[in-house]
Amino acid sequence: MAQTEINTLGEFGLIRHLTENLQTHQQSTIKGVGDDAAVMDFGGKRALVTTDLLLEGVHFNLEYVPLKHLGYKAVVVNLSDIYAMNGKPTQIVVGLGVSARFSVEALDDLYSGIRLACDKYGVDLVGGDTCASMTGLTLSVTCIGEADEKDIVYRSGAKKNDLICVSGNLGTAYLGLQLLERERIALRGQKTGDEIEAFKGREYLLERQLKPEARKDIIDALCEAGIHPTAMMDVSDGLSSELLHICHNSHCGCAVYEDKLPINYEAAKMAEEMNLNIVTCALNGGEDYELLFTCDINDYEKLIPLEDIYIIGHITEQADGTLLIGRNGEQLPLKAQGWNAFQA
Amino acid sequence: MAQTEINTLGEFGLIRHLTENLQTHQQSTIKGVGDDAAVMDFGGKRALVTTDLLLEGVHFNLEYVPLKHLGYKAVVVNLSDIYAMNGKPTQIVVGLGVSARFSVEALDDLYSGIRLACDKYGVDLVGGDTCASMTGLTLSVTCIGEADEKDIVYRSGAKKNDLICVSGNLGTAYLGLQLLERERIALRGQKTGDEIEAFKGREYLLERQLKPEARKDIIDALCEAGIHPTAMMDVSDGLSSELLHICHNSHCGCAVYEDKLPINYEAAKMAEEMNLNIVTCALNGGEDYELLFTCDINDYEKLIPLEDIYIIGHITEQADGTLLIGRNGEQLPLKAQGWNAFQA
Repeated sequence: MAQTEINTLGEFGLIRHLTENLQTHQQSTIKGVGDDAAVMDFGGKRALVTTDLLLEGVHFNLEYVPLKHLGYKAVVVNLSDIYAMNGKPTQIVVGLGVSARFSVEALDDLYSGIRLACDKYGVDLVGGDTCASMTGLTLSVTCIGEADEKDIVYRSGAKKNDLICVSGNLGTAYLGLQLLERERIALRGQKTGDEIEAFKGREYLLERQLKPEARKDIIDALCEAGIHPTAMMDVSDGLSSELLHICHNSHCGCAVYEDKLPINYEAAKMAEEMNLNIVTCALNGGEDYELLFTCDINDYEKLIPLEDIYIIGHITEQADGTLLIGRNGEQLPLKAQGWNAFQA
Repeated sequence: MAQTEINTLGEFGLIRHLTENLQTHQQSTIKGVGDDAAVMDFGGKRALVTTDLLLEGVHFNLEYVPLKHLGYKAVVVNLSDIYAMNGKPTQIVVGLGVSARFSVEALDDLYSGIRLACDKYGVDLVGGDTCASMTGLTLSVTCIGEADEKDIVYRSGAKKNDLICVSGNLGTAYLGLQLLERERIALRGQKTGDEIEAFKGREYLLERQLKPEARKDIIDALCEAGIHPTAMMDVSDGLSSELLHICHNSHCGCAVYEDKLPINYEAAKMAEEMNLNIVTCALNGGEDYELLFTCDINDYEKLIPLEDIYIIGHITEQADGTLLIGRNGEQLPLKAQGWNAFQA
């Protein structure tokens, strides 16, 4: 039998391959695979569900990720998926695989982070599965949310002339990770609270990587302003990758302006120090968990007063392609260089 | 800081420790941690959710578990949890961590099993997360289900004089596992379809371990007969362990009769060959995924005609304890010797 290596397909190719031609049986299934969350109808509110699997050595390195932060982040990245549907996260279930090298106190730290995130976002931990692991720590979080059907925002609703907006700033979490990777030898054996010279003044970069937040505030602000996004995703794999998903699902093109990308000053300094191109970081760095959305051009006036939201371009026709417009007006095709986890 | 080894608490102790004093915030949370599934209210039907984490080397050994069977079983064990609430499973999401040693064809096998289970039980695969793993295969399945509030059966409703019933037979999946473990050297390098002498006539034991079914048929039969169980669980960790959960949550005791335990003839032969006590296997062997339930004694007449359901004892007062009544009338305390995954 032919053996095809996984990396020939890439992560998205593999997911597409495994989930193509899926049939649905249940009337309650409104939207299956292919958005930030699935959508179901249980007779009243729509129920949303999303899941994430986090593996030690792949998604986190316990040399520099404190367990409390890991627990917090594992919850937040799932909440972010529900907010990205314009929904309200309500419950989570947690699957935990731990080897005997972890103490009860270490798991208490992990759970204190999980609980902190639940308390902050008003979400209930309602179930889970805890089991032994032969190899390190495995954490699976599934989040349930709710929304009225009319409020749900899919990836597929963007249309020509819509404004493309993003919250916060981009590439910062990626630079935080680069900094942690560079300093991890210095981190070995350090206790919490020890100050590390290289981190001084760069706490924000670390926080973006180690303790990201889900942008509930942006969802609330858009709702209050009466803006209903036409398409939305959270930025977990990098702006380019997410924008290409929206264009693909909405059958449209886009033009994004390099000089409009929101970039944090500390991140820019860090990129320069590391000889990294900050625009590449902003386009392809993952894990910012900002919201990327499109909205009708008539919402422009409502959008302007909102804090921490940036208009970075507009939606075009599909035939116009997916373009990055450089500072000198040059047009470059947007590429999803996002992390291909299956590449050697 | 004190370091407490996980195995001092055991699996259930650890879960209790990590989830005690959990507060809920959401009105929609009806039942959180502590049953086969959580229960939520989204305005119409109740939504149920349960999750399982399966790790290579802990929950399955790919030396003798074909990937298609693994996919099938991973789904079925979650469906079983929803049926154990007297609910209808409707959707699943799947988290998959795979290392580069797996080919696309291998993952196709895994997914063909997942799809087969979905098709057989009419459940939709609506989402997931696929990522690279450094170490073997990790599979996380979360199942969503639905039920009317009046139909849901918790662990906590058993009352004095209720009949204790179980479906199918017990200990068989455990003996299937023992057989596979014994023969795994013979299995090395065998291709599917090769016949192995030691398995002849024992296909049923293997099937119970490798391709269990969720007892939807029992749920349907009880519904048709007009029997509403007072408490119910699926038998995943062993009968003793599950029965102790029901007695604990229902504040009652139980008397179970050794000679009433449903035991398969092939399983009994296998146990004898392996010098194992078949009653111990029936009480403590896990993964049978049969349904254990209690029902009002007035349902006795309705119960008798139902196929593949066995009355094994009755509920007593809490002060009477949780007892196994031996063949000679001797009383032994029921013990949850179920697999303690954290024991060295």
